[in-house]
Amino acid sequence: MRRQLQHPARIVPAAFLALVVIGTVLMMLPVSRAEAGFAPFVTALFTATSAVCVTGLAVVDTGTYWSPFGLGMITVLTQIGGLGIMVMATLLGVLISQRLGLRGRLMAQTESRTLETADIRRMVLRIVAVSFVCEAVIAVVVGLRFWLGYDYSFGRAVWEGVFHSIQAFNNGGFALYPDSLMRFVGDDWICMPLALGVMLGSIGFPVIFELAREWRMPAKWSTHTRLTVWGSIVLGVFGFVFVLAFEWNNPTTFGPLGWGDKVLAAFTQDVMTRSGGFNSVDFGAMNQETLTISTALMFIGGGSGSTSGGIKLTTFFLLAFVILAEIRGEPDVVIGRRRIAETTQRQAMTVALLGVALVGTGTLALLAIDRDITLDRAIFEATSAFATVGLSTGITPTLPESGQVVLVILMYVGRVGTIAVGSAIALNSRQRLYRYPEERPIVG
Amino acid sequence: MRRQLQHPARIVPAAFLALVVIGTVLMMLPVSRAEAGFAPFVTALFTATSAVCVTGLAVVDTGTYWSPFGLGMITVLTQIGGLGIMVMATLLGVLISQRLGLRGRLMAQTESRTLETADIRRMVLRIVAVSFVCEAVIAVVVGLRFWLGYDYSFGRAVWEGVFHSIQAFNNGGFALYPDSLMRFVGDDWICMPLALGVMLGSIGFPVIFELAREWRMPAKWSTHTRLTVWGSIVLGVFGFVFVLAFEWNNPTTFGPLGWGDKVLAAFTQDVMTRSGGFNSVDFGAMNQETLTISTALMFIGGGSGSTSGGIKLTTFFLLAFVILAEIRGEPDVVIGRRRIAETTQRQAMTVALLGVALVGTGTLALLAIDRDITLDRAIFEATSAFATVGLSTGITPTLPESGQVVLVILMYVGRVGTIAVGSAIALNSRQRLYRYPEERPIVG
Ligand SMILES: [K+]
Ligand SMILES: [K+]
Repeated sequence: MRRQLQHPARIVPAAFLALVVIGTVLMMLPVSRAEAGFAPFVTALFTATSAVCVTGLAVVDTGTYWSPFGLGMITVLTQIGGLGIMVMATLLGVLISQRLGLRGRLMAQTESRTLETADIRRMVLRIVAVSFVCEAVIAVVVGLRFWLGYDYSFGRAVWEGVFHSIQAFNNGGFALYPDSLMRFVGDDWICMPLALGVMLGSIGFPVIFELAREWRMPAKWSTHTRLTVWGSIVLGVFGFVFVLAFEWNNPTTFGPLGWGDKVLAAFTQDVMTRSGGFNSVDFGAMNQETLTISTALMFIGGGSGSTSGGIKLTTFFLLAFVILAEIRGEPDVVIGRRRIAETTQRQAMTVALLGVALVGTGTLALLAIDRDITLDRAIFEATSAFATVGLSTGITPTLPESGQVVLVILMYVGRVGTIAVGSAIALNSRQRLYRYPEERPIVG
Repeated sequence: MRRQLQHPARIVPAAFLALVVIGTVLMMLPVSRAEAGFAPFVTALFTATSAVCVTGLAVVDTGTYWSPFGLGMITVLTQIGGLGIMVMATLLGVLISQRLGLRGRLMAQTESRTLETADIRRMVLRIVAVSFVCEAVIAVVVGLRFWLGYDYSFGRAVWEGVFHSIQAFNNGGFALYPDSLMRFVGDDWICMPLALGVMLGSIGFPVIFELAREWRMPAKWSTHTRLTVWGSIVLGVFGFVFVLAFEWNNPTTFGPLGWGDKVLAAFTQDVMTRSGGFNSVDFGAMNQETLTISTALMFIGGGSGSTSGGIKLTTFFLLAFVILAEIRGEPDVVIGRRRIAETTQRQAMTVALLGVALVGTGTLALLAIDRDITLDRAIFEATSAFATVGLSTGITPTLPESGQVVLVILMYVGRVGTIAVGSAIALNSRQRLYRYPEERPIVG
């Protein structure tokens, strides 16, 4: 049992479960609530899970339901959850790409031992430092805008700047306004810094560290960094153009905006599907086509070792290259003169298909629990929870408690599951003692 | 060019395209239509594709729109399409599982050459013989029922027996009644033989041949046969229970039926999702949950080398075993003491993911073309076309022509694509001249 828990792939699920439990207890306390009395169990569980898993889906109006203490708790849980996922996923990712098991490495009685531990400490410190610097910059810009542009008191401007900045960089998605950022739809000084914060947070530290060292030399980038950078650009442009084109004339979303505001709004919504979770237009009023494409973008998510959810950019594009190689009849999957390990291909496939299965099951559960919701909204909400995005067509607050529990499970499994699965076999020490004879069933 | 066309994986798409073209021309002729004049191009194209690809989706009322000649054409196209797919997929499947390229094999100047060609001829003849015997038995039972139970004239009973029997065994899905089999919902002597015909047709000849030899010795079955047999049973029972439970009280479907008829109806609809395409209750009136599960069952489809469409049972269950192995951290994917080849895993993944991409793109196109349809119906119809099932929630006849063309493309690519992709790499002679260094991007 103890040995099981020590497996690095199992640390993340256990740590997040502990955080959710502690968070739920604290959010239930009367001190967390604006009105008197304890918050209902499912409301506290949902909010704590949503904060720890940096999702941002909410069953109540965040800004008015919780007390300042409660809002502080949401901020702390988001920060711990976001930092935790970045640190753990980055460490696991680095270990995997170096093909070394954590236990074996730490226990090796060689001179490298101290060096390795020091490496890890330095890496963690750098992740924390980069996060705080980014958050501080965003908080200053947004806070100044609140103070100077909206005549907030200095204290309120600071608080709202810090709150939304932490939510943005950690891809948290909670907002203090019941309409998220909709009242700021045309305000570059609010939307741009928060969108850029979400983008930075969604790249992931394995890539940030590599870019910091070698940003001038794209030829030397690892396949992981290439896939993440180019994947972000390709999907970003695709989503931007699609949202802009399909919502341009929608009278309930982009219709009334000038063209400059349309561009800003398309950029903002596009970025937010990459697990940001803020929205400056109403997703519930969007076309079915935009909802469907947004669902796909949410499902894919951002970079590995980031605060983004979803199956991750590398997983998606790696699978695209696998399919390309298969169609061409090539025995190896090659990306930029590097052959992709077969175990990595299998991991990517597992992460993607388990994601589909999870979202599918969650959607079916939502449909069975609430007969009034339509399939497009059920899929959107289930994907938003699984990929810890936090965007909503508006059905979450009115779901029965059982439906909210479905979303809680999706958020938790979506947050820790892809990491656990993605690292399970790579860090496994199980030996191949005996191989069975090979067989090739017919597929297709 | 000539060499390209000779690749066995490319024969199937070319042959089906030729059939579709010929069928379209013949269906356009005034002699094919009940009323005077030429049938519109898209109507003829849709009907010919639907028949050749054994789908059964229809844009007009089959029984009244087409002349006896036209209905005969549909029967012939269905029979050729169904036999063609069974023969070609079986041959390709056998070749793949023996790990031999067709060209290399046929060109080998050894004594085995004649034997191999004779093998192929014998296999084709057995497929044709088994098909005709099955069709004859079903035609007799159903025809007798029409003659004795419904007072049809002898000639009409024979014709309708033959028509529906050929449609059933070839998983064609066309019916002579505008409501498919809904008027026979409680008639065991109509529903059971047709459902059994669909089941037989959906098993596939690689499995039928093996069962004919070794049905008493399950321990000797190949992994392919095990996956197909157990997969059929598992999904069949699951679908039956699910449909029965979720439609039991639905006043527009199972509600008015007695419990015996409910069981028959659940069995019939469940079997028909495996590419049969008949329906004895109205799919358009079903619950969203049932539609969603039916969509999933349609997407999976039946056995390889059968008239079923979809990604196939083996593909689905093989991927389930891959995921299981990945979660357990096992380096090999083992099913019943047999290790699954890595190329087979990659093929299965490619077939499944391309299927998802195709259905997703088709769904999006349908939504964009017709703003009035909802996502659940668009996905259902796109999946029904891709998996050549032919079930419909009723939107196909009212789609604009561009939407019907989308379904035509889905039917064609769904029919030939999985086979082409599933066999592309297995039969490829491309050599691995140089291997790039390996790399492991982080996934999940
Ligand atoms: K989020
Ligand atoms: K069919």
